[in-house]
Amino acid sequence: MKALLLVAHGSRRQQSNDEVVVIAEKLKAICAEHYEIVHAAFLELADPLIPDGIKHCINDGATSVVVLPYFLNSGRHVVEDIPEIVNATKQLYPNVNISIAPHLGASDLMMDLLMSCANKVD
Amino acid sequence: MKALLLVAHGSRRQQSNDEVVVIAEKLKAICAEHYEIVHAAFLELADPLIPDGIKHCINDGATSVVVLPYFLNSGRHVVEDIPEIVNATKQLYPNVNISIAPHLGASDLMMDLLMSCANKVD
Repeated sequence: MKALLLVAHGSRRQQSNDEVVVIAEKLKAICAEHYEIVHAAFLELADPLIPDGIKHCINDGATSVVVLPYFLNSGRHVVEDIPEIVNATKQLYPNVNISIAPHLGASDLMMDLLMSCANKVD
Repeated sequence: MKALLLVAHGSRRQQSNDEVVVIAEKLKAICAEHYEIVHAAFLELADPLIPDGIKHCINDGATSVVVLPYFLNSGRHVVEDIPEIVNATKQLYPNVNISIAPHLGASDLMMDLLMSCANKVD
């Protein structure tokens, strides 16, 4: 079973973290064909943290986990922090295929999305 | 003339700020029909800040400015900080129509973008 783990930064504002959980739930609804399991996790400031998110996926039966960084820029969090945490967690589960997807901001669709937002004001 | 001002949080890492400027340049190339002027600005930690970004647009001849928050979540920055700064700046330019577009994370296309990132790992 494949799992998708949506990883956001995490905020002191619970409302902002709740939004990420809602997005993960929506993703689950539309990508059931690709990912039987979808959860949210956070880099810091909110629970579950990334290792617990991966554990959650595996406890649900995941044999592979794709970590999707919900980040716009390729800053330190995307380039260093998330890979470090994921690589450390991998050691605990040698039989599970754990990988990291390109972060959100790297998508070719980003320009379409920006234009869609900009044009809503017209 | 219409201007689009892409507003990101701003980072201590110059590379992350440069990415935002590059995105604004790409946007300028693809949305010339809607916006003759496109610039980037930052909420904090990097220059130009939002008031200077708006001024820059107006100096370039903008008669309307659309501020597009390059943010994923409707946190305090999107809900309070950006509107406060934009509203304060509006007072300085009563003849310019300055408005705020929905932040990036509010777009209906967000799910498509997330799926596109997730599926790149397959």
